[in-house]
Amino acid sequence: MQKKFAFLVLASIASQGAYCQSSVTLFGVVDSSVSYTTGSLSHKVMLNPTGGGLFASRIGFRGEEDLGSGARATFWLEASLQPDSGIGAASNTNNQSSGAATTALNGGQGLVFNRRATVSLAGPWGEVRLGRANTPAYLNIGVADPYFHTGLGASQTLQGTSVLGPAYVRASNLVYYISPRVGGLFGEAAYFLGENASNATNRSDGSGSSFRFGYETPDVTLSAGYQRARFVTGDTVNRSVLGILKLPVVKLSAGYQWDTVRGPAPDARGWTVGAVVPLNAWEFRAVLSQYQLTGPGNPRSRKLVLGSNYALSKRTTLYATAAQINNGGTASQALAGSTTRPGDSSSGVELGINHRF
Amino acid sequence: MQKKFAFLVLASIASQGAYCQSSVTLFGVVDSSVSYTTGSLSHKVMLNPTGGGLFASRIGFRGEEDLGSGARATFWLEASLQPDSGIGAASNTNNQSSGAATTALNGGQGLVFNRRATVSLAGPWGEVRLGRANTPAYLNIGVADPYFHTGLGASQTLQGTSVLGPAYVRASNLVYYISPRVGGLFGEAAYFLGENASNATNRSDGSGSSFRFGYETPDVTLSAGYQRARFVTGDTVNRSVLGILKLPVVKLSAGYQWDTVRGPAPDARGWTVGAVVPLNAWEFRAVLSQYQLTGPGNPRSRKLVLGSNYALSKRTTLYATAAQINNGGTASQALAGSTTRPGDSSSGVELGINHRF
Amino acid sequence: MQKKFAFLVLASIASQGAYCQSSVTLFGVVDSSVSYTTGSLSHKVMLNPTGGGLFASRIGFRGEEDLGSGARATFWLEASLQPDSGIGAASNTNNQSSGAATTALNGGQGLVFNRRATVSLAGPWGEVRLGRANTPAYLNIGVADPYFHTGLGASQTLQGTSVLGPAYVRASNLVYYISPRVGGLFGEAAYFLGENASNATNRSDGSGSSFRFGYETPDVTLSAGYQRARFVTGDTVNRSVLGILKLPVVKLSAGYQWDTVRGPAPDARGWTVGAVVPLNAWEFRAVLSQYQLTGPGNPRSRKLVLGSNYALSKRTTLYATAAQINNGGTASQALAGSTTRPGDSSSGVELGINHRF
Repeated sequence: MQKKFAFLVLASIASQGAYCQSSVTLFGVVDSSVSYTTGSLSHKVMLNPTGGGLFASRIGFRGEEDLGSGARATFWLEASLQPDSGIGAASNTNNQSSGAATTALNGGQGLVFNRRATVSLAGPWGEVRLGRANTPAYLNIGVADPYFHTGLGASQTLQGTSVLGPAYVRASNLVYYISPRVGGLFGEAAYFLGENASNATNRSDGSGSSFRFGYETPDVTLSAGYQRARFVTGDTVNRSVLGILKLPVVKLSAGYQWDTVRGPAPDARGWTVGAVVPLNAWEFRAVLSQYQLTGPGNPRSRKLVLGSNYALSKRTTLYATAAQINNGGTASQALAGSTTRPGDSSSGVELGINHRF
Repeated sequence: MQKKFAFLVLASIASQGAYCQSSVTLFGVVDSSVSYTTGSLSHKVMLNPTGGGLFASRIGFRGEEDLGSGARATFWLEASLQPDSGIGAASNTNNQSSGAATTALNGGQGLVFNRRATVSLAGPWGEVRLGRANTPAYLNIGVADPYFHTGLGASQTLQGTSVLGPAYVRASNLVYYISPRVGGLFGEAAYFLGENASNATNRSDGSGSSFRFGYETPDVTLSAGYQRARFVTGDTVNRSVLGILKLPVVKLSAGYQWDTVRGPAPDARGWTVGAVVPLNAWEFRAVLSQYQLTGPGNPRSRKLVLGSNYALSKRTTLYATAAQINNGGTASQALAGSTTRPGDSSSGVELGINHRF
Repeated sequence: MQKKFAFLVLASIASQGAYCQSSVTLFGVVDSSVSYTTGSLSHKVMLNPTGGGLFASRIGFRGEEDLGSGARATFWLEASLQPDSGIGAASNTNNQSSGAATTALNGGQGLVFNRRATVSLAGPWGEVRLGRANTPAYLNIGVADPYFHTGLGASQTLQGTSVLGPAYVRASNLVYYISPRVGGLFGEAAYFLGENASNATNRSDGSGSSFRFGYETPDVTLSAGYQRARFVTGDTVNRSVLGILKLPVVKLSAGYQWDTVRGPAPDARGWTVGAVVPLNAWEFRAVLSQYQLTGPGNPRSRKLVLGSNYALSKRTTLYATAAQINNGGTASQALAGSTTRPGDSSSGVELGINHRF
């Protein structure tokens, strides 16, 4: 998915035969699976319950232009794709509920560059990005999860009922700065706009700031994230810490997050612990995660995931994933496709194929 | 449209000059026509009444990866396109009316890979496809029609009021198996899921199975199709037989279908007979087809089509099509753009250009 | 944006190594800016108030096939893109309000080839285009504006409250003829269809004709435009004249337009005067424009724009634009993002990056 292709392009090949090279990349993932999930209320067999079991399905266009002196301009347009029906997924124009799709468009939902739409200017001084993208604080949580929040194996910290509101995973109207790396140290800061009128009662709604900073070597990552988003229903704050350790036979990851909301909504805490063991064409994964709300009923959901992947080639992988969610208190979280009663568990399996281009 | 291009792609051309080859194909059809159709109630001049007169307009991306030992992984993403306004067309997420677009989105309908969205694994043992595609049973009807149900010339068996419901032409949540060919024998089987909850009253709605098997040589095709789809309003069953014969100067095709519905809805029978005569850059076509419902009023519509195409090149064709529908009983079928009274006829002509890339 | 790339494509590269060349072009613009606009009622900071500050953001596919004897077939599919949220923009299927998107789809608006969707046949005798595109009469107004109606700098003749209705800028269901150029003389004529039923009360709604003709050399353009569109609410007529003069240090442009509406709606007049001074990698722009309605309150809005662009490369440009709208009478036009009281002014600045691929 992250592989880079560069088309050899010939300017006006037919007319004058002149030569020039550019770099436009058409890329994507088609990830399809069959899943069976069950809870105490209902069970279901589905194709692609979540748009992908290993990496999220997508299609995108990106490119880079060398501006000289170490500077470059890049663009990146990436759309979600539901490979069981061919539809896309909605974006959010103002990081508020009013910027979401007016209604569930079902089979009518067209392709939207909802995953990422950015133009960047980069140089030795870092990179400035404008548009829509994952927030820095979210990335600090996502990379703790071997499944990066995709498929049946996704960490419960995000699959659960997050208290953080619409701008948590991705934000639109984003100005994003990425510092150059200095001896393993890195930093990212973003500010996003809700774009409300100055004389509106909700003038700050949907705006916020997001940060990630840390230390990274090929074997160790230690980082922290912070995001504050403003909403009339109560500002939300997300704090997280992350650690990744790459040992000779296993890659370990762990993340912890504190989510707080001003106002009557409950706060929450979550954690994810993951292990990945590569073995030739095989890869084995285990993830344990939990998301717990502080408040009436003390809902708490814990998820155990065991998975294995087999690489048929560099671009095609078969995978099998098994997961179980155990609910505590009034929580009734269930795997996609099933429903369960408060306090009951939900379990399921998923078999799929992931193809990158 | 079916032509295969492979982009010569160079990995990281700028940075290290390393070389790798891939095969991503950008393909499509833009087919525009001007039509005049008339019935006893109204007539109309239109651009592109049906999104294409010769092949349906579309844009798509597909690719294939060689996995060695005769195995390969492929993906195919193909979207409908209305070339008169630039909009797409909706898919259906669950093969039921609840999975269609919530409302007609008019000019807002975005591009959706509604025609096909699949990932496949293929080898000497056949091919398994997951996603959304034409059903095998539908293909057994479509290939009997020289116009493959596109444009003014489309067979009445599909243009009429089909009794078969949403999963007839294409189905989402599909697991599709294509057998290897053995001495001209072929077989295809698919199962599609409605993805309803196990405790819902309509738990089987939108699920079904579809088959096609037969014998094919370069000159002769004989095949049969069968599909059963489950709906709370009454399960539908489609059976069809098909014959194609390629003689030195003419290609003849004939299909017959039996459509039955459990419950109060009427059953139906349909047939298509087609002849295609290629003559250098020219092609002449004649199609006669009928769709008849058994029940009150005995509605029956018969359609005669005469058409000719002229190939300007391998990728561009001009075409002219004339059609007439004769209605019997209470039927009031009319060519796209016109309306007619029960028992009256409808006729029209279409002049267009079809361009493939 | 207008640069032509031709992919070197190899047919079936893996299987037989055969060679063929085609020309499919993937092109686009990602243009992002940060703007601050203010009026007497409200002000706002925004990312991408109008989908682009220099050229409108877009993504498209186009291609051309040589048919021999000077003839060629071409297709062009081009979609609007909002680079701050990744959504697209709606088309209009019938050039009437009923053909617009049923509702504002917000973050759910998918990609639509709303800017252009055409297939053409061209030769020494000119070019015939079918589909959706800018109308000839609109082009005669747009080219008078150095900003071509994009961003904060766009001429007030279009950014104001146009009286001309849905088919003014672009029309669907279009048959478009472009004459060959003879000694600098050129002509374009289009007819577009509303596609209403012959027995409907609004049978002519959304149909119309549009023309542009003139004289063009590398240094001088003189042309006139005319469009008449039919609506039950009152037919609209647009007339315009245009002059462009390219002097050694400055390119001057001027346009004047008369908009009339049959019925109770007011008529309007507008004009644009622009100057562009290129200086190495820099470009300086000044535009003055006005749109005035004849009727109660005599609303009149005049806009002054000063801008400068700096080309980082052939494909990437930084820009800064400042604009002010002065309202007369009951007019309350304001720059995107702000609102102002009738008779008050609105002003703002925009800093952005424009990247073409």
